[in-house]
Amino acid sequence: MIAIDKVRYVGEDVAGVAAVDEETALEALDLIKVDYEPLSAVFDPEEAMKEGAPLIHEQYPSNINIHVHIEVGDVEEAFAKADLVREDTFKAAGEAYATLEPYAVVASYANGYLDLWVPNAGPHVRAKALSNLLKIPLNKVRVRHINIGGHFGSRSEVSPGDLVTSLLSIKTGRPVKLVLTREENATCTRQVHDIKTTIKTGVKKDGTILAKEFRVIYDGGAYSSTGPIATSIPYYVYEEAYRFKNVRYNGYRIITNKGIRGMYGAHGRAFLCGNEMQLDMIAQELGMDPMDIRLKNGIKVGEETATKSVIISGGLEEPIRQAAEHAKWKDKSCQLKEGQGIGMGCVAIMCGFPMGFRSGSACYVKLNDDGQATIVTGIVDTGMGNESMAVQIASEVLGIPVSDINIVNADTEATNLDPGAYSQAAAFVGGNAVKRACEEAKGQILTIASEKMNHPVEDLDLKDRMVISKSDPSKTMPMRWIVREAFFRGKPITGTGAYMPKIDFQREWVKRPFGQMAGTYSFGCSVAEVTVDKETGQIRIPRFVAAHDCGNPINTMAVEGQIEGSVVQAGVGVIMEENKWSDGWLLNPDFLEYKVPLACDSPEIEPVIVCSNDPEGPFGAKEGGLTTRMNAYSAVACAVHKAFGVPFNEFPLTPDRVLKALDAAKKGGKS
Amino acid sequence: MIAIDKVRYVGEDVAGVAAVDEETALEALDLIKVDYEPLSAVFDPEEAMKEGAPLIHEQYPSNINIHVHIEVGDVEEAFAKADLVREDTFKAAGEAYATLEPYAVVASYANGYLDLWVPNAGPHVRAKALSNLLKIPLNKVRVRHINIGGHFGSRSEVSPGDLVTSLLSIKTGRPVKLVLTREENATCTRQVHDIKTTIKTGVKKDGTILAKEFRVIYDGGAYSSTGPIATSIPYYVYEEAYRFKNVRYNGYRIITNKGIRGMYGAHGRAFLCGNEMQLDMIAQELGMDPMDIRLKNGIKVGEETATKSVIISGGLEEPIRQAAEHAKWKDKSCQLKEGQGIGMGCVAIMCGFPMGFRSGSACYVKLNDDGQATIVTGIVDTGMGNESMAVQIASEVLGIPVSDINIVNADTEATNLDPGAYSQAAAFVGGNAVKRACEEAKGQILTIASEKMNHPVEDLDLKDRMVISKSDPSKTMPMRWIVREAFFRGKPITGTGAYMPKIDFQREWVKRPFGQMAGTYSFGCSVAEVTVDKETGQIRIPRFVAAHDCGNPINTMAVEGQIEGSVVQAGVGVIMEENKWSDGWLLNPDFLEYKVPLACDSPEIEPVIVCSNDPEGPFGAKEGGLTTRMNAYSAVACAVHKAFGVPFNEFPLTPDRVLKALDAAKKGGKS
Repeated sequence: MIAIDKVRYVGEDVAGVAAVDEETALEALDLIKVDYEPLSAVFDPEEAMKEGAPLIHEQYPSNINIHVHIEVGDVEEAFAKADLVREDTFKAAGEAYATLEPYAVVASYANGYLDLWVPNAGPHVRAKALSNLLKIPLNKVRVRHINIGGHFGSRSEVSPGDLVTSLLSIKTGRPVKLVLTREENATCTRQVHDIKTTIKTGVKKDGTILAKEFRVIYDGGAYSSTGPIATSIPYYVYEEAYRFKNVRYNGYRIITNKGIRGMYGAHGRAFLCGNEMQLDMIAQELGMDPMDIRLKNGIKVGEETATKSVIISGGLEEPIRQAAEHAKWKDKSCQLKEGQGIGMGCVAIMCGFPMGFRSGSACYVKLNDDGQATIVTGIVDTGMGNESMAVQIASEVLGIPVSDINIVNADTEATNLDPGAYSQAAAFVGGNAVKRACEEAKGQILTIASEKMNHPVEDLDLKDRMVISKSDPSKTMPMRWIVREAFFRGKPITGTGAYMPKIDFQREWVKRPFGQMAGTYSFGCSVAEVTVDKETGQIRIPRFVAAHDCGNPINTMAVEGQIEGSVVQAGVGVIMEENKWSDGWLLNPDFLEYKVPLACDSPEIEPVIVCSNDPEGPFGAKEGGLTTRMNAYSAVACAVHKAFGVPFNEFPLTPDRVLKALDAAKKGGKS
Repeated sequence: MIAIDKVRYVGEDVAGVAAVDEETALEALDLIKVDYEPLSAVFDPEEAMKEGAPLIHEQYPSNINIHVHIEVGDVEEAFAKADLVREDTFKAAGEAYATLEPYAVVASYANGYLDLWVPNAGPHVRAKALSNLLKIPLNKVRVRHINIGGHFGSRSEVSPGDLVTSLLSIKTGRPVKLVLTREENATCTRQVHDIKTTIKTGVKKDGTILAKEFRVIYDGGAYSSTGPIATSIPYYVYEEAYRFKNVRYNGYRIITNKGIRGMYGAHGRAFLCGNEMQLDMIAQELGMDPMDIRLKNGIKVGEETATKSVIISGGLEEPIRQAAEHAKWKDKSCQLKEGQGIGMGCVAIMCGFPMGFRSGSACYVKLNDDGQATIVTGIVDTGMGNESMAVQIASEVLGIPVSDINIVNADTEATNLDPGAYSQAAAFVGGNAVKRACEEAKGQILTIASEKMNHPVEDLDLKDRMVISKSDPSKTMPMRWIVREAFFRGKPITGTGAYMPKIDFQREWVKRPFGQMAGTYSFGCSVAEVTVDKETGQIRIPRFVAAHDCGNPINTMAVEGQIEGSVVQAGVGVIMEENKWSDGWLLNPDFLEYKVPLACDSPEIEPVIVCSNDPEGPFGAKEGGLTTRMNAYSAVACAVHKAFGVPFNEFPLTPDRVLKALDAAKKGGKS
C-alpha cells in the first residue's frame, strides 16, 4: 500500500500528510525530502520475463505475477484433425478508467471505530481488506459507498488512499479527507492491462472449431491489484460464448515498473478483438458468412462450457439472429463499398462470481406505518441503476408504486452481505434477495388480510396499495390497514431474504479453474457498421446494433442506457483510447491528452433486448450491459477488418495504425 | 410553528433566513423590519382564566388549553367519613431544561426527500409531524437522532427550527444548519410549567387515605406543545404509588403570553412535593412516622391504581424499606438537632406510554461473517445508556461480548418503529424487541449447530462465542463457523423481533383516562438529609439515599449513574432552579443567571437498586432513573419541612423563601 525501502513505479505512495487545510498540507509535503537511489527498471513485460531482467518483487521469479493454465481435451490431436489452422498475434494498449470523478475518500476514526465514506463498488470486500491491513476487528470498520462519478472496475479494491486517510485519522482522531487530482488519479490509482496474445485456432471445413490455443501476456504494472482475476477473465467470457472441446490457455500476468493494472469493464480487448477477427479470417478462408460460423459454434442452453459451467438460459443463437435482423446483416454484407465494413462480435458474461460466502446477498425489508416500505440491502449502485432495480423488484412484489419505497444500501454496518458492483451480480444475486425478503413480507400481509377480510389467503394478492381478491377484484382492503394492524399486534411486517448463486465454490478457483463459475450467463451479439477513410485512416461508426440477452429487463430504459454507454465506451473507445508510456511515465494522465469518446463520436445505436427469462433470475433477470461492453469493440474491429479485408493486429485502431496496416497490406498483398 | 399575524410570546419565530455564512445571515436578519402593534397580554394563569382577560387563542375560551378531569369513587362521602382532612396550596416556579447543548439541526432536501440530522428523543414521532407540516409523504422524511447534549423532555417534539430549516432547504436545495444561542435556546424552545396546586386529603386515624382532591393550574405559556400530556402526568405518577379509592383531579393548563412549556423529566414538583409534604403534616398530626403512613398507603403488586392500571411487579413497600434501612431512617429521625431534617419521597413511573402503534418497538439483528452482530433498532439514547442496554441484551442472548456487537439506531429510514426516549420505554419496550430478535437469530444458529455437531438442539446454548452443550461443556463449536455456514447455505443468520406493551389503548386517553396506561411501573423511595441554616436560609444536603425498583438492572453502573444524575438534577435543583419572568420576559435565559446544581452542590449519594424481576421486562428490566428524579425533590422538601416543622408552600426552596417561611412561622406559630 505504501512503498517501503523500494519504489516500484511512478505514482507509488511514499508518505502521507494531513493538515488543517489544503494549503498547509501542500506546504508540509514540500518539506518532505526523499532520497531516491535509481534502480534498474523494466517496462516491457516480455523483457521482464527474460533471464537477467531486474526482479521487481523477490517472490515473483521472472517477474511472473501469476500464470493461469487451463487445459481441456487433447489439443494436439484436435489440431492434427483440423482442416484449417490459423495462428495470429494481437496487441492492445491498456486504457484509462477515465472516471469523471477522481478517487476521493473521507476516513473518520473514533473510539476504536473506523468509518469510511468512499465511492466504491464493494463496501464489504473493502471493509474486510481494511480490517486485515489495520488489524482492527472487522466489526469496527464501517465502509459506506456514496454517490460515485464512475467505476468501470477502478473502484473495486481497497486503495492506498483508504489506508493513508485511515492511518492519519487514527493518529489525529479527526476525520481526514483525500481527493486526488486528475493526474494523480491516473498515475496513482489503477489502469487497464496492456495485452499481447497469440491465438491458434483449428477448424473443420464446415467451420466447427476443433481446437483453440491461447498464450496471453498481461502487463500488470508494479503490483497484483485485481490482476490475478484479470488474467483469466477474457478467456472465460469467450469460452462461455463458444463451444470448445479442446483448448489450452496460458495467461501470464507480468510485473513491470509501471502503474498498477486492474479489472476493467471491457477487459481484454486484444484477446477478444483478436479472437473475433481471426474467426472472420477463418470464415473468409472457408467461404462462410461470419454470422454462420458464430451460429455454428455458439453455445446453447443446457450445454457446458469447456471448464464445466452449465448454461441455464439464453445461448448465443438468439442474440446473433436478432442483431443480424435489426442490422440487416445479410443485405448490408453484400452491398459494401470500398472502405465500408460491417462486423459482428459475440461474448457471454457471468452473472455473479465465486467469492465464497461473499458471492451471496441478503436483504431486509420493513413496512412502515404509512404502508410504504424500506429495503435494506448491500446492493451497490455505481451508476447503472441497481438501486432502482432493487426498488422496482420490491414494488412488483409488494404491489406498491416505486415512489412508496426507499432504499438503505451499500453500508457495511446497516446492511447485510452483498458481493458489490462487480461481476454483474446486482440484479441476479442482490435482486433475488430483495425479491425473497419482500415475498416474506407479502406473506405476512396476506395472512393478516385473509383473517380481516375473511377470505382464503391463496386467493389474495397485492396490487395498487391494496390487498385484492384474485377471483373477485371488487373485494379489496387497503394494505396500509394491514400494516398498521400488524404494528398494533406487536408484530410489524418485516421480511428477510437471501440468495446464494449456485456456484461450485473452489477457494483456489484461480488455479483450479473448473466447475460452475457463476449462477447464470448473459449473451450478446453486436453488429457495427464502419467507414474507413483510406487517405486519413479515420474511422467512423455510423450505426451500431447491440442485441443483449439480459434474461428479462427489470428496467428497460436502464438496460438500454447500459447498452448505449457500453457501445460508446468500448465500441468507440477501440478506435481512440490508449494509455501512452515512456520509461515508466504515463504520458497522457489527463483529458487533454487522453481522448475519450464524446457525444459527437457516438454512432446511431439500436439496443435490442433479447429475453430468455432466466429460471433462477428475479422475474427472469440477468445482467444488463457488460456483455455489450465486451463485444462492442470486437464488432468494430471486425467491421474495420471487413472494410478492406486487411488484418489489424494492434489496438486501438487509431488513424496511424490504420494507415500503417493498409500500407503493409498494399506492400504484402491482402491477408 | 411560525407566528402568523399575531405574536404570542417573546421568542416566537416570525421569519427565517438562510445565507452562505453566519455573518451574511445576521446581516440579512437586520434588514427584516417587523411592525408590531402591541396587544394586551396576560402573564399569570389565574388572571388569564378570569372573565375579560385577553383571549390568546380564539379556540381556547378562558385561555384554558386543556382541562383534565378524573373522578373515581365518591369523594364527598369519603371526606365526610375521614377523621382528619387537610387542605394546602403549593406553588412552584418552572425550571429551564438547562441542556448543555442548545437546540441544533441540519436539514437537507434533495429530490423530494428531506433528511434531518437533529439530536432528539423521538425520530419517528418527529418525522410524522414534519410530514404532516410540510405535506411531504412520511417515507420522504428521514429523521436521524445524533449525539445529544441533554434532553430531559426538551427534545421530544418537532420544533419551529426543524420546520424553518426544512423550508429553507426546500427553497435553496442546499443543506441548512441552525444552532441556537444559549439565550435563544431558553426563550425560543421550551421551558417547564409553573404550577399551583391545592391538595385536599382525608385520612382515617390509622393513616389510611380515604379521599384525595386536587386542583392544579399549569402555566402553559403561549402554545400547547406537550402540555396536554403534562397536565395529567403528575397525577398519574402519584396514583401509581399510592392506593386511592376516592379521588377527584382537576388539572387546568392555561395559555399565557410566555414561552411555551412542555414535559420535563422531573415534571410537577409543586404537586409532588406538596403531596408528600402534606402527607408528612398528616402523619405529624396523627403521631405517625412518615415512613409508616407511606407503607400503609403504598400500592402493592396485583393491585390496581385508581384509574385501573394493574401493577405487575414491584410495589412501593420494598423501596421504602430498603431506603429506610440504608438511610438509617428510624435512628436518624430520632436524633435530629435543630435545623437538621430527614425526609422521604415516593413515586411510581410508567414504563411505556399509550401512543397507539407507536408504543411498540421492532428490532432487526444480523450476524456478520466474523461471528459478530449488528442490531438495527429505533431505540434512542439521549445520554442514559440505552444503546449500551440494547447491546448488552443482545450480548446476553447471543453469547458474544459487547465488543462484538454494533448498533445502528434512531434513524427513521434504517430502523423500524420505536417509541423513542420518552416515557421510560427503552429497556422495557425496545429491550424486549432486541431480545426477541436475538432469540430468533440464536434459534437459527442452534438449529444449524445441532446438525453440524450431531447433538440435540435442546441441549445446546451460546456462550463465549461458542456453541456449547449444556450437559457436556467440552462439546463446543465456534459460533463463527455456524454463521459462515449459514452464509454459504444462502441463509445468513438474521432475526427480527418486536414488542408491544400490554396497554389498553384509548385514542382519546387524555380525556378518558381509564385503563392500563403502561405495560409496567417502576417504584422508588428517596431519603434526603438536610441542614438548614436559620440565619442565611441556606440548605445543604449532606446525604441522600435513593432506592429504586428498576426490575433488574441490565447495566448496574448505568442505573446508578441515572439515579445520581436524578438526585442532583431534582433533589438539588429543588433548592435553586427556577425561571424568573417579568411581563413575559424570561429574566435568566443563561447560565450566569440561571443556577444549576454543580458538582460541589451534590450530596453524598447512595443508590440502592431494588430488584423486582418484572415478568414482562427483558431479563426482568423496567426503567432506571426517572422514578428517583420524581421523588428526589419531595424527599428534600420533606426533609426541609422536618428541620423546623415549618411548612413551605413555594418552590424552589431558595434562601429567601426559607427565611420568609421561618419568619412567618415565628409570627404565626408552627404548622
